[in-house]
Amino acid sequence: MTPKSFFAVVGKSSRRIDAIEKVTGRAKFTGDLEIPGMLQGKVLRSPYPHALVESIDVTQAMNLPGVVAILTREDVRDINPYYGHCLRDQPLIAIDRVRYVGEPVAAVAAEQEAVAEEAMSLIEVKYKELPCVATVEEAQAPGAPVLHEQIEAVGEFHELKSVEVEGRSNICHHEHIEDGDVTRGFTESDEVFEDVFEFPMICHYSLEPHTGVAQADANGITLWTSSAHPFLIRSEIAQMFGFPLSQVGVIVPYVGGAFGGKSYFKIEPLVVALARKAGRPVRVEQTVSESMLTIRRHSARCRIKTGVKRDGTLVAREAEMFLDTGAYADNGPRVAKRAAIRIHGPYRIPHYKIDVLAVYTNTVPAGSMRSIGGPQSIWALESQMDIIAERLDIDPLELRLKNLLKRGEHLKAGVKPMDADLTMGLKRAASLIGWEERSKKPQRSLGIAVGVSDSEASPVSTAIVRLLSDGSVILMAGSTEVGQGTRTVLCQIVAEELGTSLGKVNMRATDTMFTPFDRSTGASRSTTIMGTAVKAAVTDLRRQLVEVGAELLKVELSSIELKEGQIISGNQKLDYGKAVARYFGMAGGELIGRGYVRAGGGIDPVLPIFWETGMGAAEVEIDVETGQVSLKRYISIADVGKAINPQQCEAQDEGASMMGIGHTLLESLQYDNGQPLNPNLVDYRVPTFSNLPKEFETELIENEDGPGPYGAKGMGESGIVSVAPAIANAIAHGTGVRIRELPLTPEKIWRALNKEKHPE
Amino acid sequence: MTPKSFFAVVGKSSRRIDAIEKVTGRAKFTGDLEIPGMLQGKVLRSPYPHALVESIDVTQAMNLPGVVAILTREDVRDINPYYGHCLRDQPLIAIDRVRYVGEPVAAVAAEQEAVAEEAMSLIEVKYKELPCVATVEEAQAPGAPVLHEQIEAVGEFHELKSVEVEGRSNICHHEHIEDGDVTRGFTESDEVFEDVFEFPMICHYSLEPHTGVAQADANGITLWTSSAHPFLIRSEIAQMFGFPLSQVGVIVPYVGGAFGGKSYFKIEPLVVALARKAGRPVRVEQTVSESMLTIRRHSARCRIKTGVKRDGTLVAREAEMFLDTGAYADNGPRVAKRAAIRIHGPYRIPHYKIDVLAVYTNTVPAGSMRSIGGPQSIWALESQMDIIAERLDIDPLELRLKNLLKRGEHLKAGVKPMDADLTMGLKRAASLIGWEERSKKPQRSLGIAVGVSDSEASPVSTAIVRLLSDGSVILMAGSTEVGQGTRTVLCQIVAEELGTSLGKVNMRATDTMFTPFDRSTGASRSTTIMGTAVKAAVTDLRRQLVEVGAELLKVELSSIELKEGQIISGNQKLDYGKAVARYFGMAGGELIGRGYVRAGGGIDPVLPIFWETGMGAAEVEIDVETGQVSLKRYISIADVGKAINPQQCEAQDEGASMMGIGHTLLESLQYDNGQPLNPNLVDYRVPTFSNLPKEFETELIENEDGPGPYGAKGMGESGIVSVAPAIANAIAHGTGVRIRELPLTPEKIWRALNKEKHPE
Repeated sequence: MTPKSFFAVVGKSSRRIDAIEKVTGRAKFTGDLEIPGMLQGKVLRSPYPHALVESIDVTQAMNLPGVVAILTREDVRDINPYYGHCLRDQPLIAIDRVRYVGEPVAAVAAEQEAVAEEAMSLIEVKYKELPCVATVEEAQAPGAPVLHEQIEAVGEFHELKSVEVEGRSNICHHEHIEDGDVTRGFTESDEVFEDVFEFPMICHYSLEPHTGVAQADANGITLWTSSAHPFLIRSEIAQMFGFPLSQVGVIVPYVGGAFGGKSYFKIEPLVVALARKAGRPVRVEQTVSESMLTIRRHSARCRIKTGVKRDGTLVAREAEMFLDTGAYADNGPRVAKRAAIRIHGPYRIPHYKIDVLAVYTNTVPAGSMRSIGGPQSIWALESQMDIIAERLDIDPLELRLKNLLKRGEHLKAGVKPMDADLTMGLKRAASLIGWEERSKKPQRSLGIAVGVSDSEASPVSTAIVRLLSDGSVILMAGSTEVGQGTRTVLCQIVAEELGTSLGKVNMRATDTMFTPFDRSTGASRSTTIMGTAVKAAVTDLRRQLVEVGAELLKVELSSIELKEGQIISGNQKLDYGKAVARYFGMAGGELIGRGYVRAGGGIDPVLPIFWETGMGAAEVEIDVETGQVSLKRYISIADVGKAINPQQCEAQDEGASMMGIGHTLLESLQYDNGQPLNPNLVDYRVPTFSNLPKEFETELIENEDGPGPYGAKGMGESGIVSVAPAIANAIAHGTGVRIRELPLTPEKIWRALNKEKHPE
Repeated sequence: MTPKSFFAVVGKSSRRIDAIEKVTGRAKFTGDLEIPGMLQGKVLRSPYPHALVESIDVTQAMNLPGVVAILTREDVRDINPYYGHCLRDQPLIAIDRVRYVGEPVAAVAAEQEAVAEEAMSLIEVKYKELPCVATVEEAQAPGAPVLHEQIEAVGEFHELKSVEVEGRSNICHHEHIEDGDVTRGFTESDEVFEDVFEFPMICHYSLEPHTGVAQADANGITLWTSSAHPFLIRSEIAQMFGFPLSQVGVIVPYVGGAFGGKSYFKIEPLVVALARKAGRPVRVEQTVSESMLTIRRHSARCRIKTGVKRDGTLVAREAEMFLDTGAYADNGPRVAKRAAIRIHGPYRIPHYKIDVLAVYTNTVPAGSMRSIGGPQSIWALESQMDIIAERLDIDPLELRLKNLLKRGEHLKAGVKPMDADLTMGLKRAASLIGWEERSKKPQRSLGIAVGVSDSEASPVSTAIVRLLSDGSVILMAGSTEVGQGTRTVLCQIVAEELGTSLGKVNMRATDTMFTPFDRSTGASRSTTIMGTAVKAAVTDLRRQLVEVGAELLKVELSSIELKEGQIISGNQKLDYGKAVARYFGMAGGELIGRGYVRAGGGIDPVLPIFWETGMGAAEVEIDVETGQVSLKRYISIADVGKAINPQQCEAQDEGASMMGIGHTLLESLQYDNGQPLNPNLVDYRVPTFSNLPKEFETELIENEDGPGPYGAKGMGESGIVSVAPAIANAIAHGTGVRIRELPLTPEKIWRALNKEKHPE
């Protein structure tokens, strides 16, 4: 698709501004830092899924030379040790009981890592085992042990009735949306379909495990962390440890992937508490296994019931989805909220009733992960669409096109109307995969799916842009560079708006002591919302530059034009840098532009800020002897509104699809009665290059219809959601076999192909 | 003196915001930093005062295990290695010849410091000695070797005709000011006095020797340095190594004293070049001896000739001052400029002709030091005033009062008129020392002196003030905390202006990647000029807060009042923090205020920005057997306009006086034909507590008549200038002995007392 407008910098696949640092290995991540006097911290974790902590004896461990401090529940008696951004239910260190295998029980700070590890083996913890709530079903069984008694709800969940933790239930959150009359809807339907789909627990597996370094004293706290949400962490840490925000510095060097696993608060409260106890800086660097026992994606069981007319018109939908949210809420309530919209899907459905329950179990907490609640919902929804199409003998593409929301139609009352051309995107995906041959050449196993999600990205960002006296520019924006390329994109926006070259613009890592507020990096919000704040900051800067130009050139404001790094009025030209220097009267000075985006200004605050839409089309080959699926071709369509850096957009979308291939074909974190079976990279399989399709293509839709700069919208999440249903639909098309439980392992496919011969 | 206005925060001796960090030893200085992969750098220095560098062989040194890189002139062929902020005459590493003992010839970066030191001993340098220009006299002798052939002048010196480096002279700078007709003036005088005074070379001796850590790669440069001028260094480094300003980050942690010795560029270009060569971060931590061989205060020889009427009215002055500026210009030209005004003195003199020459010699370069050119000039000027008074039999106080400039009178055409009440200050000094008893009780040896200097502080500063969502505040201002307490003062200004408490305001170290531009820390400019920028930033923030308040409270802008951390309109009150959060629509967001001070706005740019004035009064006891002077009492009067933090003002003024006691009684860097004799703390004596007067008092004058916030003016330099003449005048008063050469050692006094018996 061709961009409509002309831009100088935007729309070009400029080299990433962090490219040289990263390819030369010089980019610093949190684990690379050395802080004078820094200790190494290790975390002693619970071996039991559910137990009372009767006693902790650190005497022997403290006697080990090189051990400086050991943090236990005794050290957090002076503060409220519970944190959480939906429900404040998670203690930074076990207080009375442990609720999952891997929960921090004690933490050691020692001069060397080996000493810390040895010290852990000398800590004596007495547990009293409690009955384990292993699954969602067990959690809801009558008489099941209740994991949480009293919980303080936070922020938007503070006022939501749907928070149902009432002390005698393991329901962490119940999200309910409803419209029309589903009973009538099903009565009026010609056919009613009811299916159950299952989605496994998934690990984020960022290349960089979550690491934190903290320093805490009477003067305040400094925290270096591989976090995507430095400002939310600042707020939580300030509140927890009793400092004003202005005395808590959160610094985020480069982050080696986040994918939601580094959102909100993870190890940060523990690292700060340990540093406070030690009176010295402490680094806690998690291993991959520890990361896997810190956060995961929700597993889900989804019953979806859909009523349709014989011509394929959708009439009614009832869905009930159980999300296993693990031992603590983390972002579970918000995941449930999003899943409810996502299981509805981007279709016209007059009657619907959807319930999503996040349920506590004695497993690792589940939280945000790329498109929260999306893959689980769309796996069910888009698989069932093909089941419906097959039964009604309608082409799956046609069935979808018939029901897809048009631009401006509402998925549900009260939310922003659809702001994308879904029909165009879906047709494009079909065309690229060769859909028209699907019926003619039955040897080609093709599948398709649509993925739409609502970005409830908070519209709050601020930015500062500083024009220096040589015409170069520093952008100060709190978006975290997690590998997605946000620094490059934001600098491109500065260069475009200011009329200068990208090489002159620089942006460094976030340090909350210096960088102005940003809500967070996630929910596909940086380009759209921070991008708008950055644009506003440049607008403020341009206004000043025009005034400076008018003063120096002695001309009217209206005669001034700013372009190519120059203030121009008639025949007079003045370089930006020289203008700054002359304005200040020395070879120095700078102009400072600021930009705010807030709920009441800068961007339309009706949620979602934009619909994040994408489509996937897959072609597979199945080895019927082994059940092995090979992905021959995968097409991903991402509606990005406007690609500010097309190559980065494509790379992000491909990364998302690859991650989708992971949960579709390979990944599943397995538990046996509360004991994790495979929290390591040998037994838990993430995709490698060999799992990628031979032909792997992303196409961007650029209708310049997003709310962000130049019509951009957020992206990077839509690529993940369609993968599983598209592949499952292709398998069903090729073999007639419909698998309803991910991942689509050879074993499952082989068993399904040979059902009669080898029943499960 | 009582302050006139009421303030909530200003005028209180609040605890320093860096107090806890410093008293607990947690404050980090550049030498405390650990950068991952950092090497230790050592500098091989010239043993000759003047020599050609014929060859440098690093082969053996490079073979030493642990040596990573050795920097020599070969490594700077791709850049212009000459730097300087007046004259670009100093190479970062010796190119063709060396001009002083201690000049860097090579620099080693090694894994350990000991390895670097050993490697230095393995570098073979062949020198060819050149005749040494040991003194100012030798430098000006016919046929003297010329130290510099061609020099590029910089900045204001670029256009000054007085830059007389023409290739065949060792005059680095010649400053000439003249008015009236001195010849006629002397003719019209009843008495003409002509005296010659000498002032020694003085070392700054900061507790923290100058240290730099640099990291340089294709992505830019990061430099941590104990510098007082981070933004000027950024500019020099960017230009030298070919980067835009936005890719050069200069970070200044706490600095352990600067006093001018860490102004402009010292070891920074060398450290960056070494890091560039090594491809890894490098730390160069100077020893005290190395610092003493890096920069010093100008020694001076001053012939001062003054014509007076019999009643004491000054008529004419001719002065000729030679400043030994050492091997490179550093700040010599600017020191000469200031010295010319300062030797004129704060008196009405119709006819004057003053020449100050900064002269190159083969000694360590001389540059800025607390009150540049002040102590040298005022030593001569105020000693001679007493000589005149004695000869005319006028009380020295009366003589001064008769001739002192009144407020509004001009010292010289074209400069700002006197903006202080000198008479009041001098009378106060006299009163406190008990001057009225001087004639009655001759056993009391009392002396007095006036010190006035012109601060040509560039009026260019910018600041950002950020109001966070809990009502706490972050100030981002580029003033360097060198121990003077600038962070506390600037935060006090923020708290006062914003109407909040000091505890809510925080300010961290400068990092040019984040902190907005400030010209420099020095010339007593931070409170006055940066303080004005900070005030402007708060004004900008207040304007926004009023708008926010009007929007949230739904009232008229004019009804809003801001105080005690609240937006108030009638009965409605809203905490600042809550207002920010509500404005942004979440528990986050921030308001950003910016402030600029520039030559054309914010502060009256006519130089000096203010007159820095102070007075000293001393009482001494002299042991006539040994010549030992003990300082019984010292009174210092500092006109600060308004003391924003009185205790800090007093501490700074006392520190200045103590430093003055150093050069008055103890200090002198000695050379023998180009060889420094005492560049170490054993042989070079700085004052200790035992050298302080038994009674040591500073009194502040607060007429709220300065150009800074609340009428503040700069301070911290005036305390140093009066010490030497006040003490010398007291000695002369007590013993009749007049010493014209500092320091006033027991030997000199004893010889003078016993002149007849023991001629020199």
